[in-house]
Amino acid sequence: MAKQLRLNLKKNKLKFSVTVTLKKDVLDPQGKVVQNTLQTLGMDNLKSIRQGKYFEIELDDSDSKTAEKKVNDMCKKLLANLIIEDYKVSKI
Amino acid sequence: MAKQLRLNLKKNKLKFSVTVTLKKDVLDPQGKVVQNTLQTLGMDNLKSIRQGKYFEIELDDSDSKTAEKKVNDMCKKLLANLIIEDYKVSKI
Repeated sequence: MAKQLRLNLKKNKLKFSVTVTLKKDVLDPQGKVVQNTLQTLGMDNLKSIRQGKYFEIELDDSDSKTAEKKVNDMCKKLLANLIIEDYKVSKI
Repeated sequence: MAKQLRLNLKKNKLKFSVTVTLKKDVLDPQGKVVQNTLQTLGMDNLKSIRQGKYFEIELDDSDSKTAEKKVNDMCKKLLANLIIEDYKVSKI
């Protein structure tokens, strides 16, 4: 019984990962600097590197559908700039 | 024949994703600010949010084993600070 309760409590914590990347046609000066530095370090067959942001989000929610909706809301409101960035949410 | 050649050429481009995250015990002030802002915006059941870096790397290589090794080298040399950060490489 106590174990069941603990399992239920554990279930209330949902974890999501969000990656925010620049859209294909948007210039990425930060990534370009990293690319040049890596090529200077001797990585010849590096073709391209683009940098983005990564978030690990923990929610107190029992329903994974509504939780995912909330994470999407967070992305739209704050985490990603939808004019120049794309985002991807996945459950961990 | 030409199609086969094109397929082979395409095969030479390998794409990896790298996520760099702060280790569990390292403070994440940037993530904390994002968390506070989201809570101000009305996301009550947000438990924690941690921010990391994300890279998309394209390599000109035919062998995925050696390519992955090179990406690991890049992480160790430049992309991640192994004292305070962990990294994860995966093929896209």
